[in-house]
Amino acid sequence: MKLALAETKLIRDSISIISDLVTEARFKVTKNSIELIAMDPANVAMVIYRLLSSAFVTYDVKEDMTIAINLNDLKSVFRRIKPEDTMTLEVADGKFKITLKSAQTRTFNLPLIDVEEKEQRVPDLSFSAKVTAPSSIFSDAIEDMDIIGESVSLVIDKKTLHVMSASEVSNADVEIKAGAEIKIEAGDKLKAKYSIEYLKKMIQGAKLADSVVIQFNKDYPLQLDYIAVDKLQMTFILAPRVDND
Amino acid sequence: MKLALAETKLIRDSISIISDLVTEARFKVTKNSIELIAMDPANVAMVIYRLLSSAFVTYDVKEDMTIAINLNDLKSVFRRIKPEDTMTLEVADGKFKITLKSAQTRTFNLPLIDVEEKEQRVPDLSFSAKVTAPSSIFSDAIEDMDIIGESVSLVIDKKTLHVMSASEVSNADVEIKAGAEIKIEAGDKLKAKYSIEYLKKMIQGAKLADSVVIQFNKDYPLQLDYIAVDKLQMTFILAPRVDND
Amino acid sequence: MKLALAETKLIRDSISIISDLVTEARFKVTKNSIELIAMDPANVAMVIYRLLSSAFVTYDVKEDMTIAINLNDLKSVFRRIKPEDTMTLEVADGKFKITLKSAQTRTFNLPLIDVEEKEQRVPDLSFSAKVTAPSSIFSDAIEDMDIIGESVSLVIDKKTLHVMSASEVSNADVEIKAGAEIKIEAGDKLKAKYSIEYLKKMIQGAKLADSVVIQFNKDYPLQLDYIAVDKLQMTFILAPRVDND
Repeated sequence: MKLALAETKLIRDSISIISDLVTEARFKVTKNSIELIAMDPANVAMVIYRLLSSAFVTYDVKEDMTIAINLNDLKSVFRRIKPEDTMTLEVADGKFKITLKSAQTRTFNLPLIDVEEKEQRVPDLSFSAKVTAPSSIFSDAIEDMDIIGESVSLVIDKKTLHVMSASEVSNADVEIKAGAEIKIEAGDKLKAKYSIEYLKKMIQGAKLADSVVIQFNKDYPLQLDYIAVDKLQMTFILAPRVDND
Repeated sequence: MKLALAETKLIRDSISIISDLVTEARFKVTKNSIELIAMDPANVAMVIYRLLSSAFVTYDVKEDMTIAINLNDLKSVFRRIKPEDTMTLEVADGKFKITLKSAQTRTFNLPLIDVEEKEQRVPDLSFSAKVTAPSSIFSDAIEDMDIIGESVSLVIDKKTLHVMSASEVSNADVEIKAGAEIKIEAGDKLKAKYSIEYLKKMIQGAKLADSVVIQFNKDYPLQLDYIAVDKLQMTFILAPRVDND
Repeated sequence: MKLALAETKLIRDSISIISDLVTEARFKVTKNSIELIAMDPANVAMVIYRLLSSAFVTYDVKEDMTIAINLNDLKSVFRRIKPEDTMTLEVADGKFKITLKSAQTRTFNLPLIDVEEKEQRVPDLSFSAKVTAPSSIFSDAIEDMDIIGESVSLVIDKKTLHVMSASEVSNADVEIKAGAEIKIEAGDKLKAKYSIEYLKKMIQGAKLADSVVIQFNKDYPLQLDYIAVDKLQMTFILAPRVDND
């Protein structure tokens, strides 16, 4: 395989976001895309990432292959990308080879690793609530909750999404109403609760896409989709927090 | 009570500054202003803060009341203010309710607390030296001293204020002369010494006002006044450091 | 002696860079320049610094003298320089006196110290490889290596300089080719290895000069020269890392 990218920001941001959830990752490289499906070590969150061949200047993949790599290593190299660099990715001599080319040619060879973990499958989920909103609005709401509690409740009521949190003494509520930029599709009023620690990692997806699709259900996983058309898709699935209050 | 503000920067900065000196604060809300008089836990410094009703878009106070609140909690919420937000402050259901309104409506409810401490009275002070100067000049002088010692000496001699500090081996002196922007009123030459640690907190008042009034006396408290006309006044009183050198 | 500077950035940056290698320094002040020759405490690196009299507005030195001073103290004072300040340096009353003058006059007196260490002599070195390059290119290359290993190998091969590093599992290579901006003079292919920890301190010289002269030899010291014409010169000499691989 040999892949070349001129616009490096998206892949750099992607790896940085994913590395907050998983440190070792197995990418599946096919003729159409590079794909990652990974579970965080605590089995609470899943990330599904697909970088499309159309995001590349050169995308030469003769046959499907799997590449496992340490994401912190990769992130360190990607941090060294300069705006004027063109990046080439190859597997050569049992290493993952990254070449950054501007006036100088810079080459980094990282080890390929073995990932013991079994292949992950994307669960088959069905949601009752779906919200499409500017990703910054959802990110801000989650960050608002971060000053109050450790979990966030999402409550859909007709055409309004409430992002809420409560501690023993304080509480907060961000009201997001359907409108020109915000689409809300929901049946009955429903509520679900999620870990704010994970949500804070996932809302970094706002770096990749201006818009986020939020789907959830009562006491059921949450799915967040960040999509950059013709380039990439980053999906997060987060297990609910179920409690008896 | 129900208070609304469009220009939120001043109150946000005020709370941030006060919270460096006291963490729990009792505000007195009257028809004309919100007032705070508080002593730091070490009884070395006092802050007197008055936010005038004219700083508000809506100022609806039926009767005088006292509100005690944790300033770190308040600061966390105020940090979430966006420039386009209008802020409303209310007491509702035994909570302090902060509403931030732009495209979304965001509500934060913080607990009201009990402050054991007795009500503070502003001491009756009389000063021999008075300097009015751009607040940045005084802040810079204090920060200059911070690289030398733990205390700052203020020395007034005719039309010159010296801000000085000395360690066993080093010393520094900033000479501030009366002029177009700087007024100095003093009798005989006099000197007083104050803790730099406290002064560094107090000079943050420069965020609120372009000008500071500095008043002191020999071996006597220092008073700093930061005034934003028709909006707010922040006064600090700092006990002197008396030594035998 | 009495020296005055209007352009303070170069001397401020110089002292900051030198203080990363040595904390106490003995400057030799002559009619033409201020000179420092110092060894780092581990005896691995030497810095040779010369600030020319032509960099000063006033340069009044009646007779040669030696001034020893703590560089961290000096750095603290230099950090307080404002862009509009003119700086005067004097020795007065057994102190090193720094005066910063803009609307206010600010004076700092630092202790002169005794440096036990014997006077350093610049070693007489002869190099087989010499590269002149934009200082940012060399700095970037060293920082690239910092994500891989603890040492950097410099390899010259005809008209190409390779900056390389390897760990047990990863490796990297920056290829710098001779061209319009880059001059390479070398005989046979040769290789030398240096500590990245020291190199990271030395490449800060890029703040002083747009260009760097890199000279080295097989298993032999490295010399880096950063020169601001008519103002200053900063030279670093770094012992090689010799190993048996």
